[in-house]
Amino acid sequence: MSKGLPKRSEDYSLWYNELVKRADLAENSAVRGCMVIKPYGYSIWEKMQAELDRMFKETGHTNAYFPLFIPKSYLSKEASHVEGFAKECAVVTHYRLKNAEDGSGVIVDPEAKLEEELIVRPTSETVIWSTYKNWIQSYRDLPLLVNQWANVVRWEMRTRLFLRTAEFLWQEGHTAHASAKEAMDETVQMMNVYAQFAEEFMALPVVKGRKTENERFAGADETFCIEAMMQDGKALQAGTSHFLGQNFAKAFDVKFATKEGGLDYVWGTSWGVSTRLMGALIMAHSDDNGLVLPPKLAPHQVVIVPIYRGEAELEAISVKAKEIMSQLRKAGISVKYDDRDTQKPGWKFAEYELKGVPVRIAMGPRDLENGTIEIARRDTLTKESFVLAEMSLVEKIGGLLEDIQANIYKKANDFRIEKTTEVNSWEEFIEVLENKGGFVSAHWDGTTETEEKIKELSKATIRCIPLDRKEEVGACVLTGKPSNGRVLFAKAY
Amino acid sequence: MSKGLPKRSEDYSLWYNELVKRADLAENSAVRGCMVIKPYGYSIWEKMQAELDRMFKETGHTNAYFPLFIPKSYLSKEASHVEGFAKECAVVTHYRLKNAEDGSGVIVDPEAKLEEELIVRPTSETVIWSTYKNWIQSYRDLPLLVNQWANVVRWEMRTRLFLRTAEFLWQEGHTAHASAKEAMDETVQMMNVYAQFAEEFMALPVVKGRKTENERFAGADETFCIEAMMQDGKALQAGTSHFLGQNFAKAFDVKFATKEGGLDYVWGTSWGVSTRLMGALIMAHSDDNGLVLPPKLAPHQVVIVPIYRGEAELEAISVKAKEIMSQLRKAGISVKYDDRDTQKPGWKFAEYELKGVPVRIAMGPRDLENGTIEIARRDTLTKESFVLAEMSLVEKIGGLLEDIQANIYKKANDFRIEKTTEVNSWEEFIEVLENKGGFVSAHWDGTTETEEKIKELSKATIRCIPLDRKEEVGACVLTGKPSNGRVLFAKAY
Repeated sequence: MSKGLPKRSEDYSLWYNELVKRADLAENSAVRGCMVIKPYGYSIWEKMQAELDRMFKETGHTNAYFPLFIPKSYLSKEASHVEGFAKECAVVTHYRLKNAEDGSGVIVDPEAKLEEELIVRPTSETVIWSTYKNWIQSYRDLPLLVNQWANVVRWEMRTRLFLRTAEFLWQEGHTAHASAKEAMDETVQMMNVYAQFAEEFMALPVVKGRKTENERFAGADETFCIEAMMQDGKALQAGTSHFLGQNFAKAFDVKFATKEGGLDYVWGTSWGVSTRLMGALIMAHSDDNGLVLPPKLAPHQVVIVPIYRGEAELEAISVKAKEIMSQLRKAGISVKYDDRDTQKPGWKFAEYELKGVPVRIAMGPRDLENGTIEIARRDTLTKESFVLAEMSLVEKIGGLLEDIQANIYKKANDFRIEKTTEVNSWEEFIEVLENKGGFVSAHWDGTTETEEKIKELSKATIRCIPLDRKEEVGACVLTGKPSNGRVLFAKAY
Repeated sequence: MSKGLPKRSEDYSLWYNELVKRADLAENSAVRGCMVIKPYGYSIWEKMQAELDRMFKETGHTNAYFPLFIPKSYLSKEASHVEGFAKECAVVTHYRLKNAEDGSGVIVDPEAKLEEELIVRPTSETVIWSTYKNWIQSYRDLPLLVNQWANVVRWEMRTRLFLRTAEFLWQEGHTAHASAKEAMDETVQMMNVYAQFAEEFMALPVVKGRKTENERFAGADETFCIEAMMQDGKALQAGTSHFLGQNFAKAFDVKFATKEGGLDYVWGTSWGVSTRLMGALIMAHSDDNGLVLPPKLAPHQVVIVPIYRGEAELEAISVKAKEIMSQLRKAGISVKYDDRDTQKPGWKFAEYELKGVPVRIAMGPRDLENGTIEIARRDTLTKESFVLAEMSLVEKIGGLLEDIQANIYKKANDFRIEKTTEVNSWEEFIEVLENKGGFVSAHWDGTTETEEKIKELSKATIRCIPLDRKEEVGACVLTGKPSNGRVLFAKAY
């Protein structure tokens, strides 16, 4: 199975595409830019959803569902939003088909033209704020803390599975508050929720920061983000949280009676992560043998493969394997027992390596005699023989899964640190970007003009202004003009 | 809050619409026929989803995700499918907007016209079978047991919240098998899963049956369904499971190498339930005071309302209330404590009646003195004073929730039995339909012609041929021609 997976060092991009397909994560569909998320890929996404959903609920949010379609005129209501979102959209113009008169199939019925075209949501601020207008009258109705899990469509010209697709799945939180401070606190809180999820569950270290004005969400006063580093030295924006100020409240006339008896526009936030996280997860940890999954998100944490000749051996091994499986399952560890007789053990080993199962247990007749099993870990590709009588298996495997989770985080974190370089001149900037890649930490004069000039010259963008940056006086790496702190540049997905 | 809810006996339809809105379940959006599912309504849907998803997984299915868009030509590939589904669809014709030259907003960019129009999925058989073609080569790839949770769009002219909306949420299972028998077993199994879900969780008794050829899913060889009876005597189809034969396999050329070395088309099934179940749940149990929710699907099973004057009383009651809350939560019972000081107890009582919370606990200062609480149940609207020292509160409330679940099922079941009438003449048929409503069990000669004539004359359709019907020789209620068993007619949603 993994035979022929391209090497990362030779063609990272091809390696990624092939891995996504061969590990049964996703594939392209017949519709340009739309993907099919296959069962194995979807089961990882479900695990992500479950944890995120729990975290959203623990922070007081509830789920709801808003329409797929947005009247075209809504997009024009918030001035900067329309600039950012009204362009590459799927547009519904008709609501009926009919049989072609020549019997060749179906055609669009020209008489079923919509009075106003509908846009397939690229994001839902407009439709949600037009709804909030009716939900919010008084400070008693605030805060409104709502999330939705949904599909959205942005007509991207160049698509890549999970990273950039015309249709993708995501969650979008949309909250409304009585004060700017409360809305800002919410914005920061959700960025922190995303960072915690990325680090604890995806084993993905991230930099928390603010976007520059130029990179902000269309319609936001401030955008916070988490940025991750991929193995090819390119950055990936893994989640964003926007402070919308009163922009959408003004665009949709959402006012509330304040506690003090006045009338004011509501303050808003929105925040989202998408199936793009799948791309980040794959690219951050996997190797030339296939996926490497963090145990906390792996559909199967353990796979047991029997090694046998003939029915009798299989039966004897299966008794023991099922005993082990039941022990592990009781402890909350997910286990698959692969006793298919259509494939050989070697094939199965390669298959589960490709699919990133964190722990593989192999059991042969000699193991049965000796009371041992062979335990292999996916992250380090190391094996050991384990004597079942020596310690509790649940403790052993539980400990191993924790180790793996911690180890792949550490590996990714070490890599990110190694790939973050402070530079102080333009020559250095270009040299590092071209030869080493990664995050380049440099002074910037704070103007959009310089930011765009740097992008033009180097293809690097400002990923974020890190929240934990030092206040430090310096000179802009391009213009030499004064700067009061470093920002992170990188080429990015 | 519930003041002014219309009475069922006066205007059932208005009662339903008002209840859905006032209980914060859903509302119409600005886009014709598309609804907003509000947080309270969505939290009931989430509970349904969780149970159904568990049942699907227990029967071996996994989730996946297929594209929202279907190329127009796909719909024409299965001859009868196109007749049933290619008509009232949302059609995407363009992929870009641009700013109007007069600055009035955005317009559709005429240059961004799609070569082939895309249809927003009304159901996904076509796009899924076109994908299965690549997933299935051999009997080893079968069965393929996949489900997807998704939104779909059917451009309905007359819409009603949950019951019939242009966009709705649903799950659609799509399975592929090596034999007709296996596919038929799957079809029947999923009908049974739906029936079990309806009865155990929704407390909704259903009739299991087959659809007539006329009422079958477009592209199926056989459609099974579960049919429920609403309080106004109209039937509601609550779920369908289709045996697709080899129809979609032939349309999309999906063949497999058989175990015996041959090559054959794959056998298929599809099955789905939707947010329509929300409509069924609401209409089956609720009363003139508002929603009545089965405890197994209620977002909050218990609400505690403190009755107090002044801070000190509230504090004393809160200590006890939180103790109770923590006891109940530990036992897995969901509890809300409503200590808002913005609303009076009477208002809260009406509010939770409207929202169908199964059990309400009230605590006043005298209760605190006496070691009692007042327990009210939503289904019967009865109250009792409960002495906390007398028995375990967890046992008491747990038992009560089970009672309520059983009681509302029994009530709905008694109603359905009462509303099912055997008739043997056309006069009786019309008389019962017009005055009593409900299911009319009658002989039918088995022809589509008669079925349509009856529909034309009475507005009743054949809801199903019940699986458990007696073999019984009789005469068709309309034509007098021979029949070998009764079918269920009803006016339906």
